[in-house]
Order: sequence, then structure tokens, then C-alpha cells
Amino acid sequence: MFDEIFVPAETRDAVSDRAWLDAMLAAERALAVAEARAGLIPEQAAEAIAAACRAGEFDPAELGEDGRGPGNPVEPLVRALRAAVQGDAADYVHWGATSQDILDTAAMLVARDVTELILGRLARVAGECAALAESHRDTPMAARTLLQQAVPTTFGLKAAGWLVGLLDARRGLARAREALPAQLGSAAGTLAPLGDAGVEVSRLFAAELGLAEPLLPWHTNRVRIAELGSALAITAGAAGKIGLDLALLAQTEVGEVAEAPGGISSTMPQKRNPVGSTLAVACARQAAAQASVLIAALPQEHERAVGSWHSEWPALSGALAYTDGAADAVGRALDGLQVNAERMRANLELSGGAVMAEQASFVLAQELGRQEAQERVAQSLATGEGLATDLDPGSYLGSAGTFVDRALEAYRSELR
Amino acid sequence: MFDEIFVPAETRDAVSDRAWLDAMLAAERALAVAEARAGLIPEQAAEAIAAACRAGEFDPAELGEDGRGPGNPVEPLVRALRAAVQGDAADYVHWGATSQDILDTAAMLVARDVTELILGRLARVAGECAALAESHRDTPMAARTLLQQAVPTTFGLKAAGWLVGLLDARRGLARAREALPAQLGSAAGTLAPLGDAGVEVSRLFAAELGLAEPLLPWHTNRVRIAELGSALAITAGAAGKIGLDLALLAQTEVGEVAEAPGGISSTMPQKRNPVGSTLAVACARQAAAQASVLIAALPQEHERAVGSWHSEWPALSGALAYTDGAADAVGRALDGLQVNAERMRANLELSGGAVMAEQASFVLAQELGRQEAQERVAQSLATGEGLATDLDPGSYLGSAGTFVDRALEAYRSELR
Amino acid sequence: MFDEIFVPAETRDAVSDRAWLDAMLAAERALAVAEARAGLIPEQAAEAIAAACRAGEFDPAELGEDGRGPGNPVEPLVRALRAAVQGDAADYVHWGATSQDILDTAAMLVARDVTELILGRLARVAGECAALAESHRDTPMAARTLLQQAVPTTFGLKAAGWLVGLLDARRGLARAREALPAQLGSAAGTLAPLGDAGVEVSRLFAAELGLAEPLLPWHTNRVRIAELGSALAITAGAAGKIGLDLALLAQTEVGEVAEAPGGISSTMPQKRNPVGSTLAVACARQAAAQASVLIAALPQEHERAVGSWHSEWPALSGALAYTDGAADAVGRALDGLQVNAERMRANLELSGGAVMAEQASFVLAQELGRQEAQERVAQSLATGEGLATDLDPGSYLGSAGTFVDRALEAYRSELR
Amino acid sequence: MFDEIFVPAETRDAVSDRAWLDAMLAAERALAVAEARAGLIPEQAAEAIAAACRAGEFDPAELGEDGRGPGNPVEPLVRALRAAVQGDAADYVHWGATSQDILDTAAMLVARDVTELILGRLARVAGECAALAESHRDTPMAARTLLQQAVPTTFGLKAAGWLVGLLDARRGLARAREALPAQLGSAAGTLAPLGDAGVEVSRLFAAELGLAEPLLPWHTNRVRIAELGSALAITAGAAGKIGLDLALLAQTEVGEVAEAPGGISSTMPQKRNPVGSTLAVACARQAAAQASVLIAALPQEHERAVGSWHSEWPALSGALAYTDGAADAVGRALDGLQVNAERMRANLELSGGAVMAEQASFVLAQELGRQEAQERVAQSLATGEGLATDLDPGSYLGSAGTFVDRALEAYRSELR
Repeated sequence: MFDEIFVPAETRDAVSDRAWLDAMLAAERALAVAEARAGLIPEQAAEAIAAACRAGEFDPAELGEDGRGPGNPVEPLVRALRAAVQGDAADYVHWGATSQDILDTAAMLVARDVTELILGRLARVAGECAALAESHRDTPMAARTLLQQAVPTTFGLKAAGWLVGLLDARRGLARAREALPAQLGSAAGTLAPLGDAGVEVSRLFAAELGLAEPLLPWHTNRVRIAELGSALAITAGAAGKIGLDLALLAQTEVGEVAEAPGGISSTMPQKRNPVGSTLAVACARQAAAQASVLIAALPQEHERAVGSWHSEWPALSGALAYTDGAADAVGRALDGLQVNAERMRANLELSGGAVMAEQASFVLAQELGRQEAQERVAQSLATGEGLATDLDPGSYLGSAGTFVDRALEAYRSELR
Repeated sequence: MFDEIFVPAETRDAVSDRAWLDAMLAAERALAVAEARAGLIPEQAAEAIAAACRAGEFDPAELGEDGRGPGNPVEPLVRALRAAVQGDAADYVHWGATSQDILDTAAMLVARDVTELILGRLARVAGECAALAESHRDTPMAARTLLQQAVPTTFGLKAAGWLVGLLDARRGLARAREALPAQLGSAAGTLAPLGDAGVEVSRLFAAELGLAEPLLPWHTNRVRIAELGSALAITAGAAGKIGLDLALLAQTEVGEVAEAPGGISSTMPQKRNPVGSTLAVACARQAAAQASVLIAALPQEHERAVGSWHSEWPALSGALAYTDGAADAVGRALDGLQVNAERMRANLELSGGAVMAEQASFVLAQELGRQEAQERVAQSLATGEGLATDLDPGSYLGSAGTFVDRALEAYRSELR
Repeated sequence: MFDEIFVPAETRDAVSDRAWLDAMLAAERALAVAEARAGLIPEQAAEAIAAACRAGEFDPAELGEDGRGPGNPVEPLVRALRAAVQGDAADYVHWGATSQDILDTAAMLVARDVTELILGRLARVAGECAALAESHRDTPMAARTLLQQAVPTTFGLKAAGWLVGLLDARRGLARAREALPAQLGSAAGTLAPLGDAGVEVSRLFAAELGLAEPLLPWHTNRVRIAELGSALAITAGAAGKIGLDLALLAQTEVGEVAEAPGGISSTMPQKRNPVGSTLAVACARQAAAQASVLIAALPQEHERAVGSWHSEWPALSGALAYTDGAADAVGRALDGLQVNAERMRANLELSGGAVMAEQASFVLAQELGRQEAQERVAQSLATGEGLATDLDPGSYLGSAGTFVDRALEAYRSELR
Repeated sequence: MFDEIFVPAETRDAVSDRAWLDAMLAAERALAVAEARAGLIPEQAAEAIAAACRAGEFDPAELGEDGRGPGNPVEPLVRALRAAVQGDAADYVHWGATSQDILDTAAMLVARDVTELILGRLARVAGECAALAESHRDTPMAARTLLQQAVPTTFGLKAAGWLVGLLDARRGLARAREALPAQLGSAAGTLAPLGDAGVEVSRLFAAELGLAEPLLPWHTNRVRIAELGSALAITAGAAGKIGLDLALLAQTEVGEVAEAPGGISSTMPQKRNPVGSTLAVACARQAAAQASVLIAALPQEHERAVGSWHSEWPALSGALAYTDGAADAVGRALDGLQVNAERMRANLELSGGAVMAEQASFVLAQELGRQEAQERVAQSLATGEGLATDLDPGSYLGSAGTFVDRALEAYRSELR
């Protein structure tokens, strides 16, 4: 029920028990294929195993129940797979592997699929930001620091800032995705059961799955996982920043943007709730917590950890799902966003020109020196007489336009 | 698949979408009942609503999908409920309430049910610790500080320490459970739609549900939720402490305990994996992360938050589920635990009596003064000649027995 | 530099190295006193030790440097103390204790002192909230859900909500403070070096320091510490909630409150930065992180942990300091807060009466039924024709006044 | 006192108030220099300002106290700097900049310096791991999964795993360091006070400081900061992993390594406490918490945040300090580490050959098939008759040696 609210359907599927199971089977299959290719197991056995893996007649919930004893779902899966394969080939199921090989590899496959979804979604959200930055390149609005109107900026620059944040985060996530390694180490990272063929099988295994071949088995070197988790949480946080800004801009008293209708209350029809923005913030908070589990799990005991490894499974699924949830939610918020440029202009005038105080100071300072100019301006504002000079916010935008152009150029060169 | 491994079936049910839905329906029903009792809505309407709530013909996944627009599952539920009620009574569904009233109240009902499961389980786990403390009250073993053998202690005292940790944590959780409040405030905490009857309805509503009546609506005062989250994480951590100790004691080189068979590896049959202990540690890590979401969510905007409220829903479910998972896992580890008192004794002698160095120092100090005594002992150990005195670990246990008795007394007075 | 900004001077002192050192010396002194009283060490020795402890001629930075070897500052302190005591009495310094006994007890003393400061400050902040709740009991303002104006509320009710949050949090903190226990267990919790006098010395030691006597030594039962950490983070979060609301109310476009002058920008004199509010939010975030360290530290190895114990020291200091920082900052924000009731009223009218839509619906529903009434109201708002009925926000406040009275009564009975 | 224990002196200095102050002055100086170069301010003014900045006659604690009002230390610093500069040049101090420009840029300078220390230290620690990997390339020891002896591995492979973890983490940290950007945006990111020269000044400013020039001002795009924080926590975690393994290997009952003397207890001279390992674990826990603050701070309001920005200051200092603390501590643990290869061998034999069960299964499987072979082995172990085959752990190391060689090659190509 909550998952449906937070996470897109496609992504829910991609982190589901079923997706993990498929990924575990893909790992078992790739293992058999690689071992056959290396001449370690009969080719027929590999074919039989691959066929059984494809069949996919396994029930994840049951594997979970049966996994309570050994503490992971791979042992029951291997038993079930052997039963499905039958005959001599059954002996070659999971040949020389350890449960963690399969589960870690599966995790990488799941992560690869979901990060692809996220990267695609981020590209679309970035596109929405870019469109706003472009069309509002010169739309003046109040910049707000500590939630106080400070000086003029443009809505284009604000959107460009969102865009750059997303691009920065996306780059980190893409890098983490590239590095996702296959895992194959046997019980303790030596690949002893594979004899002399260990390194070769390891290479073939990774190639078969399209994952990176690691330097060494990484059963308790979790740097890659923690990096992935961080990149996810950072991505979700970058989306959350946009959501927070949108919710603030959508406030009744500010009214500069509104999400496309959707979150309308029956008893309070005047409300246009910033639902996408809200969910983006919520997802960012969850993603951060899941990433914290992954970072905390770095110190793992010896060759397989007592609990911190296990804590990663739901944390990784959660970080993936909520990050995509954040991207999706903020995408929904931006899609069809109503931007009220008139209200932006009106808000700039709310303070009787006070938002132009900085510029007035700088103008006056050329005659009077900085200090006297500042005092003069402060006094004008304090007495409510307004600023003597009649300044236009549109004339005090500095490099805003150039910055927008830079952001758009970066966007185009990276994502188009 | 992972949920099955980490969380007992009963608890999975108790935090499931279905359980949340039932709890939301219970809240809607109680609201109607309370309002009828207060004369605010017709009694027949309340009956019709209650009947529709009992029917429970709603699909949580669908409510979740429909909840993406408004950002919560209550709005679609209310629509569906009105459709189910039909006629004039439909108008009185959800009368004067806001979505958060229903969802917060549902959260408290879910929390109440799951914490009851946890408290029960903790009592059983405490019983297991108590039994160990009692039967091993005088079983000497090495105490270890920074994982180095330090001085003798007893396995009874170790188990008593676990027991007291559980009792401490359980007390906090029971207190948090007692405080779980109903939520009823209407859109903004004033109960304006209920006219003069607000406070009365609020009282009746809480009474109907058996929840505490809060001083005020607490839409954005989340102290109770954060306290509950902390109490859960602390409980899980107290269980994790036991798991960690057990896994350390079960090490091949230590061998002082072994979990009852279960986690046996097919290729390495000598291994007796401390699976329960491991899962307890994993669950504690997850519960801590979920609690961190709840604590971070304390600062909520105005009368309803932009995201931090929403982030609580999965966090609360997660904290509840993983805490019970931790309790269950450590209970499984303790249940049928094999305690090897001989190995404990043998380990004490591993160091050629070095573990008695402190006592030797104290004995010698009576003749030689502290400093010289310590030097003499250090020298004996350094030269490998052993300690001159022939000391028995069983003679250097101080107040261990008394402490065990104290812990057992506390256990008996609290839980039996 | 940052500490000065975040943490009041008195509190900085109370968590300083010097304060920890004083507390460690207090623990050593109380140990000697208790042991003398129990007849375990000569009274003269206790007097000599107590005198040396009072003298306090020790340099915390140096103890820190010397503590790198043993991994804690107690070992060098004991050496230095023995040197200061001289003679036979030197042998009785730290008699039978372990470093953790002293450091944990010192932590409890530091915590007791700082929590007293915090409780006092919370009482004052609560007083400020109470004063606002009382004087603005009937001042209407817009309630905002998801940052959208929803229905009317009162500023009094908002302040009452803050007040109740603080009272709730304060109660938890006071309870955690009451429970702060002395620590005395010797190397491994058996008090073996104290022979038969262990339990008696333990009692006298706690009494001498005015700390709770624990059931058992709690070297690796960290429930109390985690509870304290949580209570601190929750308190800081309750303060952060107020800060967040104030910053939102102080927005240029909202303008309903302003902090007393202080944060004025030289180039932008129109800005009245909500600095206290901002710092409260910042402190709450830090306190939460420190508490997360304490909760994560619950699973500690055997009789002394490998690192998680050590991670508590700065975390506890940090949680204490930032929690007081949050309370102090929000106190500064509230002290001299300018409340603009006219602006509150004006903001209510911003939407052309839309904020009264809910009431209009309820009024019309009596004639037309709920559904038609809602449609009529929605239509009126959509066409911009305004609501037919001329409703006064002050007439739709439900139980707001009663709730304020309840909060004030709770405040008075608890804190006056 | 605690800082001295956790953090090397050089690093304490590098994150001290004084270091931050120096960095803020460097930023003010570079700003004046860049603006003079761009023809925006008189060259003499820039010289006078640079001279005043070099002088450095400012007291950070005082700036902190004075910073309570504005909520940051830059405003008082600018005032003090203007007073120090005197004359017309004073007007050009901080010309066109905002407090956050200076403080963010200072943060990047501090981060650059400390990360350089950390990278250097990591290279040394990696060197220690490499030396161990090389000299123990073929030293057999038991691999342990879930803390149970599983199969043989080598100490060389274990050290190679540590090495690769460090290299992985170090690469991420170096990348984050490369990306550290200067901050210059004026009040709201438009650089309006700099007129047409904004972009040019921005470029010169970054160049002057040797920091990266950002695409846009990044006042509320905190992705770089969060990435830095994550990279730090991950580095600390990789160090913590080594510390944890060392502490486990150093256990009395395992005795395979011992840290060089240092942590010796006076009353228990047999203890060789793994102090460096312990502190590494403690530091990793703290660094993770600080990073969590930085990740949680990603969603920042509009053009300057209400608190989350402020929360970053101590978090960044803390993450830097504790990460270096972790690296330093584990370096101390490894430096002079006593490796007991005989004990490793002896431990392998502890189980009467059980650790060879996997190999025995594989050998027998060639005759009997997998299933029967496994049953035969399990039976042999169960009956205590031992394994029929006389297997040597040294003969079942698979690709361990090759993996060690790979790790060493990576180390050499990256760090030598």
C-alpha cells in the first residue's frame, strides 16, 4: 500500500522477491555456463542447469521460509535447483560456489537493472528542469536565503541549479553502476574448488553476466556497495532538494508554482497539495537511512560477516526503490508544473523595493562609499520611505543568464 | 524472501498492508461510533459505516495505487468506503476527520499489536536468559575485554547481563506502548467540524480503540512516535548484543556455545553457523536505521509535514518488524543453545594461568605492595614460568553470584 | 568557533575536557571514599586520594596524548594520580576498578550536569511557548498542511502544540536523567578484587555520587546510554520543530512572526534572518546523528567492546551539547518574538475566503448533503466568485481554545 | 582529551578553528586578488586586504561568540577585517560576496588539506597491507565465515583484501578531492554585485585558490559535499574492517596476530589490547554518523538553507578528523604487527582436519558423486573418526596466490 505510493510499479517489480530470485538464477546459470566453458563441468550439465534456471519454478516466499535455517535463501534455492535438474547434472549445480557468491551477484544484477531505470528517469527529470531553465531563463523572482527574500534571481537559474544537482548526482550513480562487480570466490575467496581454473571461471562468469570483473572476490570488502548506496542516497537527496523548493514555492502565500492537479482535498478544494514534492522529500529520507545501513556495514568480519552482510539485502532494495521513488515523484511534480511568473514579479515587489536594497547600496556606494550608502539604504527601509532609486529587479541579475546557459550546455552534452 | 528470513510470519502479517488497512478501517469505524455516541451523526449511519468497515472488501494495493495522487491511502479508502456504505449514511463516513487522523491512529493500532508480540517474545527470550543465568550461575569462564581474556567471570553473569539488558529495553518499550495515543484533530488540530463536541468525540474515539487520549491532536508533535522508534531500536540492539556475544562464543577457536543445529553447510559439515545470532545482529542494524528516520522526522512543518510524516510509514513498519525479528532470532539462538562448560574451563587455562594475573597481583600485593606485586606477576608471565600461586578461577568470582541472583529476582518480579 | 555559535558557553564548559576530567576525578575520589567506608582501604589513604583528586593538577590534553597507547584517558590519569598521592596511599588509588568504571561513571556525571542545564532551559522555553499560547489563545491564523492554507487555527494552538512537544520530550529526558547509574564492576563486572565487599562498595559508590545504583555492572549493557541519547535527540527534535515553524512563519511572504533583531545583513537590511530558528534546526540534526552512534553502539562485545564503547564518548558529549544548543537557540528565537496578528488575519483572507471552504461545506451540507455541498463550494472557488456565505475564521476554531487551556494546565502542573 | 586519542595532532590542527579561520582569510584574500585582477576593485585595495588577511590577528572563539547573532562566523570576521584594513580599501573587503561564499570555500580548503593528509596516510597503510600480503602470500590460515572456520585461505589473501578495500576507498576519496569547488555566488548565486565580471572573477577566484571552478554557484546544491562525506565514511569503514579483523585475530583463543605493545594493562599484564584496531572501529562509527548528517543535508531550502547548511560545518570537520583517525589507528595497529604463522597453522588443525572437509568432499566426489561424497565426509566428522584423506591446507588454496599478486600489482601501479 505504501510501496505503491512511493515506488513506481516497474521499480517495485525490479526490487521484488521475484526479481531477486531471477537474478540468483541468472547467477547460477552463468556459473554453470562459465564452468562448462572453462572445461570444469560437462557442457550437458551446464545446459541442463541453464534450462532449469530458465524454468524458474521456484517460490521466493517458500525459499525465504526455508532460508530461516541457513540464514539465506541460496541454500534452499540450490537444493530446489538440484531437484529440478535431476540426474548427474544435478551435482554440478552451484559447483564450487558459496551462497554469498550467488546472492552478491544477484544483488549486483538487481542494482544494475534498477539503476538503469533511475538513470533514465533522472534524464527525463533533468530534461524537465532544463526546459524550465530555458523557458524561464530571464524570469525574475526573489531569491530567498534563510527563507527571507534577499535579492532578485531568475526562475531559470533556480531550475538550472536543480538541473546541475541532478547531473552531478547522476554522474556519481552512473559511475557506481559501471563498477558493479560479479562476485565469485567460493567459501572463502580462494576459489579453491575450481582448482587452477578459478581466475578463468571468474572472468567468464563476469563476462557472461555483463558485470565488472573484480580484482579479487569481495565478500567482505563492501566499498562498492557502500558507494552505490551513497550514490543512491545522494541522488534521492538531489531530488528531495527540488521537491522541497517546489513545496515552498507552492505555498499559498508564495504561489509561484503549482503542481498539476492531483492532490486535491475534498473538503478543502482550494488546496493544491504539492504531493509529488512531498513524496520526493519522504523518499529521500528513506533512501538516506538505507544508505546509512550500507555504510555502517563496511566493517565485516573475516571472510563472511555476522549480520552486517545480511543487513544489506533489504537496505539495498530500499535504497534502490526509494531513490527511484524520489526521482519519479519529483518528475511528477515538475511534469505539468504551473509557473506563475506574474506572482514571482509581484512577490518581488512585496517589500516595497526592499529586495533591491543590495543593488541600491552598490549604486549609492559609488558616490558615498560603502558604509554611508548602506546606512542610507537601511534608514530608507526603516522609515518606510522606500528606496529613492527606482530599480528594476530585471536589471540586477548579474550572471544568472550565463549560468543558465552553462547548465543547459552541460545538460545537452551529457544527456542528449 | 528476505522478509521471511528476518521476520516471523505472525509479525509480517501484523505489519502488512492488510493489517494497516484493517487498522484504518478500525479507526473509521471507531470515529463513526464515537460521533454517534456524541450525537453528532445518526446512529444508523454509524451502524452502516461500522458494517461496511467490518466487511473489509478493499484491496490495499489498489488503495496504494489510487493514493499516489493524494499522497496517502486514506483518501481513496474513504471514497471506497462511501461507495460501500451507500445512501445517506455515506455522507457520515470519515465525518470531520482528516486523512492523518486515520493513518496516525492506524499506525498506533498496528504498533500496539506488534509491540504486544514483541513484549511477549522478549519475555520468552528473557526466560531463556534467566534459565541460563540460573543453571550456569557458578560456571566459570573467561571474561573478555577488547576480546582479550581478562579475568574469570561466570556464564551465569554473562547471561544475567543479557537478561538485564532485555529487561531494561523491554521496560522502555512497554512504556512507549502504554503511551500510544489516538489521533483526532480534523484538518488542522482544531476539530472545528465537530463543533462543540470535539473534545468529547476525541475522548470517546480513543476509548473505543483502547488507545491513550492525547492532550492535544499531535499531527506534527511526533515525540511519541520517535520515542516508540527509539524504544524499538534499543530493544533490537539489546537483542543484537546477545547475538554478537553468542557468535563470538561459538567461534571455532572458542567453542563455548553452539546454536542448535540448523545452519549447517553442505560442503562444510563441520560448520555450525550461528544463524540466529547473525540475524539478530542484522535486524538490530535495520531497526536502528528505521528509528533514525523517525527521529529525523521530528521537525515537521506547521500542521502537516511535507514528507517527513510520509517517511514515517515504512520506517515504523520496519522498526516494528525488525525489532521483532531481532527478538525472534536471538530467541532461536538461545533455544536449545549448547553450552560447553568444559570448554569454558579449558579456555580459562589456555593462557597458562595468565587470566589469574589480576588475582595473583592482589594476593601478592598484600605482602609486597601493589607495584612490586604487579611487576613480579608481569615478569612471571613474560618469562613464561607461570604464576607461582596456584589459583582457581572459581575462587575469583567476586560478586558474580550475587549479581546473578539480583538479575533473576528482577526477572521474576517483572515477568512472572 | 562553530561551538561558540551552536552551544551556550556554560554548556560548552560542562562537556569540555575539563568537565570530563573533573568527573573522572570525582569517580576516583568516590571510589576511595566508598572503599574506606567499607573497610577495604585505609581511611587515610582515601583522604590522601580525595585530596589529590580535589587538587586537580592534571592536563586533559596531555592525558589524551598519553591515552593513545592504552586507548583511553583513565590509565594515564591513574598513573598521574598515583604520582600525586605518593606514599602507601598511592597503592589504593583506583583500587579494584577498571578504566571503564571511571569513564562510564564520569560520563554519567557529565550527563547529569548537562541534562540539568537542558531541563532548566526547556522549562524556560516551555514558559515562552506557554506565554504565547496564553496571549494568543484566540488569535486566528491559517493552519497549513503540506504548506497549503487549510482551515483556520489559532496561534495559541500552534504555540500549545510546541509546548506539549517540549513537555513530552522533557519528561523523557528527565526520566533518562533519573536513571543515570554509577558504574562499578572491576575488570569484568564481578568486582572480584573487592572480595566480599563488592556489592556494598558499589552501593556506597553510587550513593556518594548521587547516581542510581545499577542492578549489575553495565559495561556492555548500554540501554541506559542509548535511552539517554534518544531522549536528547528527541528533545532537540522537538526544539527543531519549533524552529522550523518559526522560520516558515517568518518568511517574507508570510510575515507572521519575526525574531528579535540580531541576524541583520549589512547589504540587505530588509532581511530579518530567523537565526535562532535556523540554529535550532541545525542542532537537532547534529543531535540526531550523535544519538544514532549511541543506538548503533548497543551490541558491544563480551565484557568490553572493541570500538563501539569508545565511539560513545564524543557522541554523548555531542548529543548533550547540541541538544542544549537546540533548546538555547529556539529560546532565543522565542524570546522577544514579534507576533503579527494582523498579518495572520490578512493571510487568512489571501485566498478570498477559500480557507473557509471546509466550514462552508459543512454549513451547506446541512441543506444539500455532503457531496453536493462540496461540489458547490469547489465550483464557487473555481469560478472565482467566492463563497456565498460570509464566514469568519474566528467562528470556525472548534476546540482550539480548550486545547490551549489543556496544554497550559499541563504546563502549570508540571513546571510551575 | 578524546580528540587526542582519536585524531592525530596534525589533523586536529588541520580541522581546528584556527585552520578554518585561515581558510576563510585565504578566501577573502583570493576574492580581493581576483577582483583586482578583473579590474573590479583597485589593486591597492586588494594588496591592503591581502596584507590584513595574512596578518591573521583574529580570534576564532571571539568570532564564534560574535557569530551567534548572525548565525555564522563570517559576518564578524568581515567586520574585523574591515577594521584591520582601514581607509578606503576597507570598503572593498568581501566585495560582492556573501558569507556562504567564504565559509563554503573555506570548507573546501580545509577539506583539501585534510584529505591530502588522509590520502598520504592511506598510502602508507596500504603499503603496510601490501607488505603483509607479499610476505604472507603463502601462509595458510583458516578462513572464517560467520566466525566459523570454513576452509583454508592465506594471511596474504586476507591482507590483499584489506589492501584492495583501501585502494577502492582511496580512489573514491581522491576523486572527491579533485572535485572540490570554490564557491562564489554573492547573496543568491547571480553574482549581481560583480556586474559583467561575475563569471571572470569566479574563474580567477577558483584558480587563485587551486580549487575547481564550478559550473554554477552551489549554495544549495550540496552533492559535492555529500559525496565527500560519503567517501570519507567509506574510507573510515574500510579501515574499520581491518581493525575488526585484527581484533578478532588477536583474540586470546585465536592468537594469530598481536599489535605491537602499547595497550598493556597494569593489573592484567597478559593482555595485549588491540588498541589501534579498536580505535579504528570507533572512528569509523563516528565518521559514518557525520556523513549521515551531510547526506541528510542535501535538501536545502531555496538559495540558503534554514539549518541544514549550518549542520554541515561540524559534520565535515568531524568526518575529516575521524576518517584520518581511523586510518591512523589502523596504521598503528599494522605497524609492527606480530604475525604468528605457527598459530595460524595450529588453528587450522584445531578441528581435526574438519577445515579440509570441503576439499575432501571434492576429492571423494570424483569417485562417488557429490551427494554421497558429502554424506561420507559429514559422517566421518560426526563420528569423530576424522577424514580418511590426509589433506594439507596448503594444497587447497586455489587462486589465493594469484589474487595476492593482482592486488600487489594494483597497489604498485596506483601508489608507487
